Amino acid sequence: MKLATLRLPSSGATRAARLDESADVLVELDAPDLGAFLARPDWQRRALAATAAAGERTHRVADADFAPVVPQPSKIVCVGLNYRNHILEMGRELPAYPTLFAKFADSLTGARDEIAKPEETEALDWEAELALVIGKPVRRAVGAEAEAAIAGFTVLNDVTCRDWQYRTQQWLQGKAWDSCTPIGPYLVTPDELPGGVRPDLEVTLELDGEVMQHDSTADLLFDPVALVEYVSTLVRLNPGDVIATGTPGGVGHARKPARHLEAGALMVTRIAHLGELRNRVTAPAAAPHAAHMQPPSTTR
Amino acid sequence: MKLATLRLPSSGATRAARLDESADVLVELDAPDLGAFLARPDWQRRALAATAAAGERTHRVADADFAPVVPQPSKIVCVGLNYRNHILEMGRELPAYPTLFAKFADSLTGARDEIAKPEETEALDWEAELALVIGKPVRRAVGAEAEAAIAGFTVLNDVTCRDWQYRTQQWLQGKAWDSCTPIGPYLVTPDELPGGVRPDLEVTLELDGEVMQHDSTADLLFDPVALVEYVSTLVRLNPGDVIATGTPGGVGHARKPARHLEAGALMVTRIAHLGELRNRVTAPAAAPHAAHMQPPSTTR
Repeated sequence: MKLATLRLPSSGATRAARLDESADVLVELDAPDLGAFLARPDWQRRALAATAAAGERTHRVADADFAPVVPQPSKIVCVGLNYRNHILEMGRELPAYPTLFAKFADSLTGARDEIAKPEETEALDWEAELALVIGKPVRRAVGAEAEAAIAGFTVLNDVTCRDWQYRTQQWLQGKAWDSCTPIGPYLVTPDELPGGVRPDLEVTLELDGEVMQHDSTADLLFDPVALVEYVSTLVRLNPGDVIATGTPGGVGHARKPARHLEAGALMVTRIAHLGELRNRVTAPAAAPHAAHMQPPSTTR
Repeated sequence: MKLATLRLPSSGATRAARLDESADVLVELDAPDLGAFLARPDWQRRALAATAAAGERTHRVADADFAPVVPQPSKIVCVGLNYRNHILEMGRELPAYPTLFAKFADSLTGARDEIAKPEETEALDWEAELALVIGKPVRRAVGAEAEAAIAGFTVLNDVTCRDWQYRTQQWLQGKAWDSCTPIGPYLVTPDELPGGVRPDLEVTLELDGEVMQHDSTADLLFDPVALVEYVSTLVRLNPGDVIATGTPGGVGHARKPARHLEAGALMVTRIAHLGELRNRVTAPAAAPHAAHMQPPSTTR
């Protein structure tokens, strides 16, 4: 199954939906978004029952306005340094533990949305990533329980302000920018994927048609099940929660010379069997206050 | 005003409440928790109008069961390295930018709750902190707008698993443990505090009656208003969002020899004019799976 969260054209509200590929339509589900839908213990049965033929409201795929596939996850956990080839080619040892950091729900944006380049950064960069979405509440899940907690997978681009990321040792302030992290368009259930809950999928990032990242999710050091086990050791995972599994080599920051995203650029983030994000970078919506080009005053 | 979120004895549901000090009762407000209450643009007027005399439902303060003062903030941003004296005494230079990391709503627990020491850590530690709570939605707020966005202040203890914090360069996995971060008991509005939105308050952490941390929030390098300006540069802040402003010297990890929290310990985290957290550390509720004493298997 392929599930999504749609923005409804009439109201601005959102609605969970299932892709009916035979009819090329998205069928509405009985929930305001996919996170709320996944919180129902019987979501798989309900989703299977939702077809165009069953009389549910539908939307043509060509007209779909995709919200973030889960607009309000209670947590977004991101993994750094997780592609084996890339770690080794950088001359580093394979880490014993995954490196984890967070984003906020407000950091997310839709699969086709424009991304307004913040005026405050000179180094906006891309990171194509496989993301998993939780479908069952778990804590300290192991083995089959961790596998069963994965509702499915989606595409995420961990768009990063590198200059802010490296202002301090903690990466959050480069990673959590408002509405800069596209996620979607679909959550695809593991039964549709080669490798299932440890999918083996081609990941590609194209910038204005030029391939910048190209790798396989089979190269992940900590696979999706291992990440559910690890993260759920420390904190409960709820339906709709997102774990972004890390990015392969080829980010702009590591290129010689470095490449950054400028207004006008088109990023296509594609994962085989999952679909693609298409995000145009635009100029800032409004000029920020000049004061924010500097660190805040500490006048006390 | 002093506001709180109470767990109701009958249902297990929560309810926002206002402290009526003259009657020594908590008066129920018309919202399930303080975050929902602060999302109402007229929350200040509504809170002022809620008195025992006005016939609202009340609860005796002595019987109050405090939930996290905001149980479901959309973001919790924490600041590292922010007490000037402590930075200088460590021989470090004052940083140009605040160090930011995140916690999750599920990391929070109530002001009087027990904290179950996770079996997976050998180094549970305390960090007494002043936290601010947002009362108006803001992005790129400067000056008076940033000041007005602060609904009030509360007490937070950034309880940390040091061994997990330092497994990798990113601190999240030591900081986000489920139900380990007490916050509350009250949100106190700035008009009740010396210094207002830049309050000058004594902070104390007592472990089994022994003072471990003792400083003044006047020593903050990045004050609350500066933090609202800085964080709102990168991401919107919503009513109920929390910024924890950092901890002064005296944490267990930095002591010679190091001190850690063990089952039975009583932590009292006190900030003058705000109140105190009283949290007993207990043994783990249930033995975790042995597999989680090790990093996850990477068997793919």
